[in-house]
Amino acid sequence: MSLSKQLAEYVVSLKYDDIPEDVVEFTKLCILDYFSSAIAGKDMPPIQKIEEMVEVLGGNEQASLINGGKSSVANAALLNGASSHIVEQDDIHKSSIIHAATVVIPAALAVAEWKKLDGKDLITAVVAGYEVCFRIGEAVSPSHYYYWHNTATCGTFGSAAAVAKLLGLSVEQTVHALGSAGTQAAGLWEFIEDGAMSKQLHPGKAAMNGVIASMLAEKDFTGASKIMEGRRGFFEAMSDDYDAAKITEGLGHEFKIMENSFKIHASCRHTHHAMDLVSDLAKQQDLDPDAVDKVEVGTYQVAINITDDEDPQTIYQGKFSLQYCTALALVKQSGSLDTFTEENLWDGTVRELMQKVEVYVDDEVDAAYPEKWGANVKVHLTNGETVELSTEYPKGDPENNVSPDELYEKFMVLSKGIDESRAEEVAENIMTLEDISDLSMLFPHNMAVK
Amino acid sequence: MSLSKQLAEYVVSLKYDDIPEDVVEFTKLCILDYFSSAIAGKDMPPIQKIEEMVEVLGGNEQASLINGGKSSVANAALLNGASSHIVEQDDIHKSSIIHAATVVIPAALAVAEWKKLDGKDLITAVVAGYEVCFRIGEAVSPSHYYYWHNTATCGTFGSAAAVAKLLGLSVEQTVHALGSAGTQAAGLWEFIEDGAMSKQLHPGKAAMNGVIASMLAEKDFTGASKIMEGRRGFFEAMSDDYDAAKITEGLGHEFKIMENSFKIHASCRHTHHAMDLVSDLAKQQDLDPDAVDKVEVGTYQVAINITDDEDPQTIYQGKFSLQYCTALALVKQSGSLDTFTEENLWDGTVRELMQKVEVYVDDEVDAAYPEKWGANVKVHLTNGETVELSTEYPKGDPENNVSPDELYEKFMVLSKGIDESRAEEVAENIMTLEDISDLSMLFPHNMAVK
Repeated sequence: MSLSKQLAEYVVSLKYDDIPEDVVEFTKLCILDYFSSAIAGKDMPPIQKIEEMVEVLGGNEQASLINGGKSSVANAALLNGASSHIVEQDDIHKSSIIHAATVVIPAALAVAEWKKLDGKDLITAVVAGYEVCFRIGEAVSPSHYYYWHNTATCGTFGSAAAVAKLLGLSVEQTVHALGSAGTQAAGLWEFIEDGAMSKQLHPGKAAMNGVIASMLAEKDFTGASKIMEGRRGFFEAMSDDYDAAKITEGLGHEFKIMENSFKIHASCRHTHHAMDLVSDLAKQQDLDPDAVDKVEVGTYQVAINITDDEDPQTIYQGKFSLQYCTALALVKQSGSLDTFTEENLWDGTVRELMQKVEVYVDDEVDAAYPEKWGANVKVHLTNGETVELSTEYPKGDPENNVSPDELYEKFMVLSKGIDESRAEEVAENIMTLEDISDLSMLFPHNMAVK
Repeated sequence: MSLSKQLAEYVVSLKYDDIPEDVVEFTKLCILDYFSSAIAGKDMPPIQKIEEMVEVLGGNEQASLINGGKSSVANAALLNGASSHIVEQDDIHKSSIIHAATVVIPAALAVAEWKKLDGKDLITAVVAGYEVCFRIGEAVSPSHYYYWHNTATCGTFGSAAAVAKLLGLSVEQTVHALGSAGTQAAGLWEFIEDGAMSKQLHPGKAAMNGVIASMLAEKDFTGASKIMEGRRGFFEAMSDDYDAAKITEGLGHEFKIMENSFKIHASCRHTHHAMDLVSDLAKQQDLDPDAVDKVEVGTYQVAINITDDEDPQTIYQGKFSLQYCTALALVKQSGSLDTFTEENLWDGTVRELMQKVEVYVDDEVDAAYPEKWGANVKVHLTNGETVELSTEYPKGDPENNVSPDELYEKFMVLSKGIDESRAEEVAENIMTLEDISDLSMLFPHNMAVK
């Protein structure tokens, strides 16, 4: 049986009543965390540009846009997907290297709202979408990740799976949806060299492409039956070391969404290990940056590939500079969204300390990746002392988890741009999602100001 | 200077008045030939399914749909792109292995109509779009083509370039447009194993994605500046043997659109060499299929990869079976659209002869590919005679070209499904395109029935 068919059977057979209560609760936190980032990002320039384009193109009013108003489900998936991937605080699944929320949730939300489905349907679709894209990401990582933005490429399958579930597609139709998803999968890392806005285009387009794939499949529009394992399929074309067994091991018996990590710092996840360590150290010891002679950060190769940048020129590039993030976290004792400002980008103390941060590949840490996204940090002080610190799990990983209260707090910080009473209502509705029948009530602009 | 910037400078500087008259005339034939295939395909199931989805999604009425009515430029590019790539008679550029019409022309048409531009603008944009995608296809072929559908992947750049020209983007904006195009480039050959409808989704999405790329670039939405040659860019990720020099050699001094080939037979281009040879032979000698003992077809490796199929089950699969196409052309002495019928798919004589067709890689022919798409054919007769035939250029190649009259005849055959007077008017308007100011008048449904 093809891999697509096995995934399709899983998607079709998944029922809300079979999802354990802790998984339901965790999925609601994933949706809350999606909105944290989507609301924080909605007024930023790349998102405004996409919003303007969506408005020019137009579309039937099917689904709420994060910036207000409604448009087609394709447009809603595009805009709401892009919006959640800009402040660099959206969730991450380590072993597949996927930010699933920013692709799966906007696609599922748009279609569920359009079809007047309820909170339980949305939760079920999100669980299915995460499961599918995490498995595909695990199968092709890490080699796929060198060129490809897994969130976009593998995310397309997750979007299609979630939408297939919501549209009630048959197994055969779901296979076609996965085929059409895989053959649209795109998103090259090259943009990172320029800090270009492709970062937001990728998840938006992945969400939109998954919606298109499943809407077409509903009409029996056919796709490749072996889009993953076929000789000219996704695995062979886009990965050097794929492991097809990851698609099916334990499928139907586990809930991979529970492996999802949440981000507390507002930068690339590959910088969090060091930020956790140095901000904790700085807080505990009330460390003066001037007392630091050198900081050595040893981590895994992929982190170096993505975040070795000695001289970021924009806030955005700063979030992808391990040197800058490490210095910032040590000086400001925090990595929250409001520390990544233009002022702090050019802060003399941070800039000076940044020159003293050396990053390198630590073979032991690298060998444990991607199961563990760790770092060894040595802080050499001017008094001759050296403090050694290490972590295997940045904060927010399942092994070092954050509480619902912390995620609620994060939501309230990230949704500062909207009316507070509306933000509170959004959070309340999400945390009681299984009782919500009108899913437009997850969008702040659809609520009255109290 | 980056490759994108060099292409962008070419696109921005190209002027209608600098295009020689023979190139203008040829470009109009490309547009006529686009409409041949688009009209012939418009009512077929995959296109109807996309049309239904486009209608459900909705969009502002900016550009004509090939099936009637208007929708957004993104939707028009999607539908009108898909429609022209189903009867397997759209144009092909050998050395880039791209069917450019089905991607570049619908995108350019949609945006030109929307912006109320004229025929000269459209011609200029099409010339630019062909130039860009042909060069990119040449740079990555043939290795890229094993996994990737060049028409879709490289075509996305061509769509973006044509639209960038029409929107009057700056050099910098055009670089961003190419970046956003390349990072959306997708389309795996895996669908061919199932004869799936992805074949039509690919060019439609490529056209649409190029439109999105340039619309966003107009708003200064940024993309990778070195999307082609960057270390995590299109070349490195999606090709084993790219030649970056192809992008710039002779750029601005030649018109690659003149290298375009037209298809007379309604099947995959990789079957045409043998079809030309055996149909001519059968006509000349009034050959009885029963008199044939064996047919050996020696051709290039890529033709074998794509078209070695001993037992096609659908008309569509038949168009991708070298064995079937060779037998059909010998028996019916033609390969036109009306020979690819369900009746002929199961025709006893064709099926019997097909068993006698042996296909193999001819090393000499293979070495000349992709500059020459040739074949050596040996027809062994039951009387012991053997007829040897060979060609380097299937009919419709620049080296073995068809006349404007033949392309007009093809257009009239392929547009049989619409009112004849409308078809004639479409053709007349296209052949006087430099004088046309209302581009909606290229669409049959916008004309009165005479």
